[in-house]
Amino acid sequence: MHGLSPSEVVTVFLALGVLLSMARICGEIARKLNQPSVVGELLAGVVLGPTVLGSFYPDLMGRVFPSDGPVAVVLNGFVTVAIALFLLVAGMEVDLSTIWRQGKTAISVGVGGMLMPFGFGFLAACVAPLALGCEPDAERVAFALFFATALSISALPVIAKTLMDLNIYRSDLGMVVIAAAVFNDLIGWLCFALILGMVSTGGNGHAWGIGGITIATFAFAALVLTIGRWCIHRSLPWVQAHTSWPGGVLGFALSLGLFGAAFTEWIGVHAIFGAFLVGVAIGDSSHLREQTRAIIHQFISFIFAPLFFASVGLSVNFLTHFDLSITLLVLLIACIGKVIGAWLGAAVGGVRGREAWAIGFAMNARGAMEIILGLLALQNGVIRERTFVALVIMAIATSLLGGPAIRWCLRLRRPRRLDQFISAKAFLVRLKAATRRDSVRELAQVGAAAAGLDRALVDAAVWDREMQGATGIGKRVAVPHARIDGLKSPVIAVGLSDNGVDFDAPDGDPARIIFLLLTPRQDDGAQIEILADIARKFGDENTRVKALQVGGFTEFLALLRTLPES
Amino acid sequence: MHGLSPSEVVTVFLALGVLLSMARICGEIARKLNQPSVVGELLAGVVLGPTVLGSFYPDLMGRVFPSDGPVAVVLNGFVTVAIALFLLVAGMEVDLSTIWRQGKTAISVGVGGMLMPFGFGFLAACVAPLALGCEPDAERVAFALFFATALSISALPVIAKTLMDLNIYRSDLGMVVIAAAVFNDLIGWLCFALILGMVSTGGNGHAWGIGGITIATFAFAALVLTIGRWCIHRSLPWVQAHTSWPGGVLGFALSLGLFGAAFTEWIGVHAIFGAFLVGVAIGDSSHLREQTRAIIHQFISFIFAPLFFASVGLSVNFLTHFDLSITLLVLLIACIGKVIGAWLGAAVGGVRGREAWAIGFAMNARGAMEIILGLLALQNGVIRERTFVALVIMAIATSLLGGPAIRWCLRLRRPRRLDQFISAKAFLVRLKAATRRDSVRELAQVGAAAAGLDRALVDAAVWDREMQGATGIGKRVAVPHARIDGLKSPVIAVGLSDNGVDFDAPDGDPARIIFLLLTPRQDDGAQIEILADIARKFGDENTRVKALQVGGFTEFLALLRTLPES
Repeated sequence: MHGLSPSEVVTVFLALGVLLSMARICGEIARKLNQPSVVGELLAGVVLGPTVLGSFYPDLMGRVFPSDGPVAVVLNGFVTVAIALFLLVAGMEVDLSTIWRQGKTAISVGVGGMLMPFGFGFLAACVAPLALGCEPDAERVAFALFFATALSISALPVIAKTLMDLNIYRSDLGMVVIAAAVFNDLIGWLCFALILGMVSTGGNGHAWGIGGITIATFAFAALVLTIGRWCIHRSLPWVQAHTSWPGGVLGFALSLGLFGAAFTEWIGVHAIFGAFLVGVAIGDSSHLREQTRAIIHQFISFIFAPLFFASVGLSVNFLTHFDLSITLLVLLIACIGKVIGAWLGAAVGGVRGREAWAIGFAMNARGAMEIILGLLALQNGVIRERTFVALVIMAIATSLLGGPAIRWCLRLRRPRRLDQFISAKAFLVRLKAATRRDSVRELAQVGAAAAGLDRALVDAAVWDREMQGATGIGKRVAVPHARIDGLKSPVIAVGLSDNGVDFDAPDGDPARIIFLLLTPRQDDGAQIEILADIARKFGDENTRVKALQVGGFTEFLALLRTLPES
Repeated sequence: MHGLSPSEVVTVFLALGVLLSMARICGEIARKLNQPSVVGELLAGVVLGPTVLGSFYPDLMGRVFPSDGPVAVVLNGFVTVAIALFLLVAGMEVDLSTIWRQGKTAISVGVGGMLMPFGFGFLAACVAPLALGCEPDAERVAFALFFATALSISALPVIAKTLMDLNIYRSDLGMVVIAAAVFNDLIGWLCFALILGMVSTGGNGHAWGIGGITIATFAFAALVLTIGRWCIHRSLPWVQAHTSWPGGVLGFALSLGLFGAAFTEWIGVHAIFGAFLVGVAIGDSSHLREQTRAIIHQFISFIFAPLFFASVGLSVNFLTHFDLSITLLVLLIACIGKVIGAWLGAAVGGVRGREAWAIGFAMNARGAMEIILGLLALQNGVIRERTFVALVIMAIATSLLGGPAIRWCLRLRRPRRLDQFISAKAFLVRLKAATRRDSVRELAQVGAAAAGLDRALVDAAVWDREMQGATGIGKRVAVPHARIDGLKSPVIAVGLSDNGVDFDAPDGDPARIIFLLLTPRQDDGAQIEILADIARKFGDENTRVKALQVGGFTEFLALLRTLPES
């Protein structure tokens, strides 16, 4: 094989390392700000690409991310494989049976959420193509078709993530949205594959022509989702029984994904389409173990996907190609078409008022998919940089809007968890107190300081409550608590005791992990939710043992954050 | 970024898919034959490369694995990153503290197992370089140094795998071997890095000269293993506490690995060295969660490593460059030097007779490491194809020898497990019998058929035993059993009963999962080991529920094979 020179190898590792670490860091920052991590990953690319780094230090950018030569080819190869594998994972999240289970409503939402934005988009692109960034000499029909398709596809991964974050993924509403989004995705991708085939035929002169590509695409999709799905379902137990675990299944799934990608690219539509279909077929099998899914999902979503999304920013200067009027117009058409379309679909399907709007906003979220589409269209000359930038911004904005809008429509609150309200200030790794009275006093002091309240007031409130009944809940855990007037949000002080403090627990064991829990007077739910969270997390012996071994607050927080979801 | 044409994209996906699937399939076949899977992965490359496919269908090979052009560059990039990541994982398996815990013995084994083969190899390469495949015009000192180093490095991953398979990884002997192998690896890699630096200086004219590279290498190694290790250990809880789980840690570990690789490649030694050192530093932290280790390990060992090992075969024609005399000579020098050196070291360290020999054979295993070294030396012109082929064969042969030799030295038997002795022939997914007597008869029939024994004889033996005391062990499981004269190896018949059969269990529940266990009369251990295995596996409610839902033998076997290790 053709070898890379040592300096090229250095650049490959450096470029991948910089892309990955920046993408992960920015992704985490976005998450801290309650935004989807894809937003941060995209911004990382914008910072590293021509928009920021390139405009200040073009030499440095050119050296780390050369635009030509073997290194550029290798990075391009990595990114190409990364998108395909990410789509494999996205496909694996699709559950075909939900489409049937939610039946009529889902299809009505799916059709409404597809036709309306497609119609709006197509109309707008036909009436005023130049206002949407179409070049005067571009192929107008392809542009209009692409634009309409881009507006009508939802972003299944973003939607699924948003619904999970809101804890309504498995609700009826959640399933309707997911089923409709799956329907949207499948149809949308097929449309896009055809448009791309149309354009590529012009550009590269694919031997089959548009008719051949259309037939091959539908035939492949039908084959994979019927016979392919059945074969995979039948093979999985055999693979798991006769190969090493989990290596056999991993290799099986990834090989199939790669072959699927190769095949659809070969018939003239993009590789990601084949990987996605294979993912749907694999993910649908009930024989697929949760662990296999988790390994593939985690490695690809956290390593390959960030690499891809960060690389998007490397290709375009987002500042010079930013056009406010195009962006606003795209955003407007996209939101109105999708929200109203999906709302209408939901209403027709029998969903009432606020819930129908929630479905509309949920379906409105775009993200990963839109950007992949946009990038392909850009590379194939269907759209230009200005429209691409507008589409990316639209995708990000609608994703950002989704969570808050649904929460507002359904009047949802986020469930409150222990780890949101503890802090280094109110954490005592060695509690000095030996009695119940003293330990409440000691924890009230740090808790009051963290909450900005009077120490004596907190102490009195907690001790009053303690006198009505001791708060040792057994298994060496105690949760003294009180509702406090004027407190804005819960504050929890944590103390670990070497010798234990008698909190009069039912099992008689002295408490060694003590949570002092202060909640706002008017907030009924906070206390009960956090108490339940503590009971669930510290009901596990393993967690208690590890908690008693921590050396400080950060380790304690790390322990809470890395507990398996229950 | 420089784009790949659609047909190049097809080739990239196809080449990766073919490499991965062939490597995994051949790896699994090797495993079935009780060989390390790396042997199969290498053979997959030999089959796909010039040795087999290329000599029959050179056109086809050239189209799937082009030797030049963008696709070759992309594949090369993938393989380069794959080795580096594999070494990151290998480094993570190293446990620095074991070196200190086993102290004197480990160092004595490590030094003996290092110096003796190094001395032998160096001597042989100086005395008779041509007999070892050195070209007359090659740089003899570099050749001799490389050859000696290649013989003295052990293959930590292969050794660790072998010891785990034999269930002696955590024994004293196991820890001595692992500690010595770690010591060997670190020193060996440093030596090799220096030789490579020496050669590259000649070839590419690295600005620093050999002195600069030596200092930089040692300084980097020292820095990573002291301050770097400390920083990583301190950062991990913070990363786990403040980033998404497990994405934050995955990104952190892989980014560091990529940066380490870039750095060592930049100072003039190979990228893998930096990735390995970073892996050691990360793997040593007690804050690293088992789950993180597992995700990285499984994805990289089962996806990236096979890609790399299969790609080795693509570069060389193993048939035309096979030289029997060189191969035998290399094998002889390698084995004698390593086994005697390590045995001597063990004896000096106070290990007695057979155990000392077991240590010698354990240390003798080469594998992954040797092949990576050989490939680098080949690419850098230090050795030629004939020596490379001999080294690869030596690595495979010594790896194959390891397990059986240790088992023989220590008179070990493999622990027997349920899943080794069940078969489709003796599996009844719907047991018809309703009584204890009938169910024994029904299972004895299929069990006897599978064992090639007389039905009546088996039935009588099992029922006799059953009359001495019922074999319902509770929780809906029963294990009727008997020792049979003349049986060569255990045979287990399995029956699932819809309505349950009363086996007089302590908890009174009728048995729904019934194992009829036939073991050889003279084999005392078999019965108890398999009974314990059944009790352990089916003590879990979850396993029993899933077992009762299987639709056939393959699903039942898949269930057993995918149970978490306990």
